[in-house]
Amino acid sequence: MHAQQMIAAHPHVRGEVNTALARCVEACFDCAQVCASCADACLGEEKVADLVQCIRLNMDCADVCLSSGLIATRRSGGDVPLIAAQLRACELACARCAQECEQHAEMHEHCRICAEACRACERACREAAASLPGADAPRH
Amino acid sequence: MHAQQMIAAHPHVRGEVNTALARCVEACFDCAQVCASCADACLGEEKVADLVQCIRLNMDCADVCLSSGLIATRRSGGDVPLIAAQLRACELACARCAQECEQHAEMHEHCRICAEACRACERACREAAASLPGADAPRH
Amino acid sequence: MHAQQMIAAHPHVRGEVNTALARCVEACFDCAQVCASCADACLGEEKVADLVQCIRLNMDCADVCLSSGLIATRRSGGDVPLIAAQLRACELACARCAQECEQHAEMHEHCRICAEACRACERACREAAASLPGADAPRH
Amino acid sequence: MHAQQMIAAHPHVRGEVNTALARCVEACFDCAQVCASCADACLGEEKVADLVQCIRLNMDCADVCLSSGLIATRRSGGDVPLIAAQLRACELACARCAQECEQHAEMHEHCRICAEACRACERACREAAASLPGADAPRH
Repeated sequence: MHAQQMIAAHPHVRGEVNTALARCVEACFDCAQVCASCADACLGEEKVADLVQCIRLNMDCADVCLSSGLIATRRSGGDVPLIAAQLRACELACARCAQECEQHAEMHEHCRICAEACRACERACREAAASLPGADAPRH
Repeated sequence: MHAQQMIAAHPHVRGEVNTALARCVEACFDCAQVCASCADACLGEEKVADLVQCIRLNMDCADVCLSSGLIATRRSGGDVPLIAAQLRACELACARCAQECEQHAEMHEHCRICAEACRACERACREAAASLPGADAPRH
Repeated sequence: MHAQQMIAAHPHVRGEVNTALARCVEACFDCAQVCASCADACLGEEKVADLVQCIRLNMDCADVCLSSGLIATRRSGGDVPLIAAQLRACELACARCAQECEQHAEMHEHCRICAEACRACERACREAAASLPGADAPRH
Repeated sequence: MHAQQMIAAHPHVRGEVNTALARCVEACFDCAQVCASCADACLGEEKVADLVQCIRLNMDCADVCLSSGLIATRRSGGDVPLIAAQLRACELACARCAQECEQHAEMHEHCRICAEACRACERACREAAASLPGADAPRH
């Protein structure tokens, strides 16, 4: 992906890329694709009834990751509380989806990969949130 | 829109609709459309340079509203902390966008309508969050 | 929803609203919400294994409707072939989803409502496409 | 990104990955992120008034790419006419956005990168569409 390169080319940034945020953007788009794919793969499994909660969390996680990736992409507008709140929701969505997928990881390779992508995105959101100016202020 | 009717038809709900959540879903989709429309209208104004921050907040708000509307639609999965966090991000996005649009409301009718839709959605998110089980627990 | 009111307030439109397009925007957002809701309701049914194809088509239709609603909202940019192609994809997605939901309409109220919303959106997309300048030109 | 790995793990695929489709999925998500980023960078340029059409096409392209990437991800459901129509819309959206960005590529590095990503995605959509079963049938 090109998130870092694009952010470097932004007129407000002029080379000083927040790499934690750029990595977070890429992790969000990757995780959204993986979750959408895992939901579809789960729907294709014979025992789909056992995977219903996994499918729901996949879908939630995909939606939250997409909007988080888009908001973080437009970071330059600079509304720190908004992006922090969205990254917090994304961290939670990834953690919940990872937790669920980990339970099916031995049985389903797609859940194993998805759990990994969710954990990576969870971490990337946390690190990006910590990199924001004023990030050590109390969450409201 | 049909959010309330659809939620009433959900097998887990069996008639006991959380109307605050159903209203919130409709407000989110409405606000997303209005914000996308306001961004485009702002881009069409002669003095677009004065509306850059408005356009960015419109876009952020549209994205957050869409994922919030989708997550709230899938409420039945029952992950309360996730939906609460997403509604919190949405409340913030709406408040910020409303604040900005209100400054242009006398000049631009699209900003006036958009500010109203954002305020309505902000309120609907707050009320939906308050309606969730355990909602009076401290936010984490 | 406010699509018509917002389009009327657009600086390029100045009151001459294409009502077929405005109706289509509202139908797309409504149908996206209904399809997302139907997918979740199907996931809650005991015989979820019989509804797998329905869930997939619901998800496809929700995604296509959202991007179509957004593109049609930004109509003023004026790229007619692009919006025509997107409305064509949306018409197809709605038709396929409606066809599937109609098969479960007697059993599941959510599928009945969803089939109706899809048929309404299919029609709205067709009428909006026909209202575009040069719409009777051959599709490429 | 993990699209190819995830598709390979899908229960309906069992190793026989359609690599043109997997590449297309990755190109769509990449292009969506790049377009969203280019829109924001254009909004940050001093002469934003000259870039209005570019911003609109960026936004259209981002939306179409996201839904196309999601639909192509769920390819297993197998509705070939729908995915073909959506890929066709995406090819068009990418071509239009590339054309516009190319005009600003010498002036703005973000437009140069964006034009490249759009051309890559345009090509990937065309190749993926050609790889679908029955793809040489006349478009309807």
